[in-house]
Amino acid sequence: MKEISLNRAIELASPYPYALLVTIDKDEKPNIMGLSWWNFVSFNPILIIVSVAPERYSYKCLTHNKEFVLSIPAEDQAKGAWVCGIKSGAEVDKFKEAGFKPISSKKVKPPIIDGVTVAFECKVVKEIEVGDHNLFLGEVVAIHGNPDKSSHLYTIHYRKILSIDQEGNINMNP
Amino acid sequence: MKEISLNRAIELASPYPYALLVTIDKDEKPNIMGLSWWNFVSFNPILIIVSVAPERYSYKCLTHNKEFVLSIPAEDQAKGAWVCGIKSGAEVDKFKEAGFKPISSKKVKPPIIDGVTVAFECKVVKEIEVGDHNLFLGEVVAIHGNPDKSSHLYTIHYRKILSIDQEGNINMNP
Repeated sequence: MKEISLNRAIELASPYPYALLVTIDKDEKPNIMGLSWWNFVSFNPILIIVSVAPERYSYKCLTHNKEFVLSIPAEDQAKGAWVCGIKSGAEVDKFKEAGFKPISSKKVKPPIIDGVTVAFECKVVKEIEVGDHNLFLGEVVAIHGNPDKSSHLYTIHYRKILSIDQEGNINMNP
Repeated sequence: MKEISLNRAIELASPYPYALLVTIDKDEKPNIMGLSWWNFVSFNPILIIVSVAPERYSYKCLTHNKEFVLSIPAEDQAKGAWVCGIKSGAEVDKFKEAGFKPISSKKVKPPIIDGVTVAFECKVVKEIEVGDHNLFLGEVVAIHGNPDKSSHLYTIHYRKILSIDQEGNINMNP
């Protein structure tokens, strides 16, 4: 064991499950952000946290409308999913840019991205300042999925993307 | 897309990066808990959250001594790492049970598990109640690693374990 840099540590701890955060802006236009800083934090109620920096367009959206849909994108959505992680919703229409089709959610305003492996509809119940990001704690109010899609996307150091399924099959450049 | 159960959703969103949380109890005996509910939440300062249920022995430890070491176990530690996820530190000595060797941390009391891929020494800066778990927000004060170990462990629905490296090589039953 030796002391290593954060950069090296983040690389060594890769890959991370990659998610898409769907919100709506003040004009009710849907936005999508790619992120790996999310997780489950409670089973009862089912709570998910996402960590979003205040300078992100998604932060403005979450402040305006306290709801989000956390989506786990499928292998065949890699190209569009990556676009969502590198462009800003302040400048482009993410659904258009990514080639994704929005479908209506059941209990929240932000739409579901059609074709994702899993989608969690969430209502924000708490916002917590943590360093240079804010945590949004979302209570899951509906869950959708495509049980025939068994794989989804992961990032390596937030720089590359790959796909892994539950049987351990992997695809490096989906 | 169709509505699915939480159980199915958690399965579909697998695998999750598996970590070991090292704490010390009131007698300064080190304890280890296996968990997948962790993530980075801030770059500056570097902050990590872990979600721990109040009934866990690790929760008692964290309440007593507000420090932890979050370790990302290597592929060759799978057997011991799994033991840490299924037994309680109130009943067994986890280091002994898992066959792990503790080495001194640089800035916190809980030790590092020798041979892990990455280890983050953390001081708890905030505790937040979230449903049936509590979030512990840890500021990273030192980082250690084994840069020659490029793979580490993941769980499938918290039931099975596998190993993935940054090149996409996978090992189902390490």
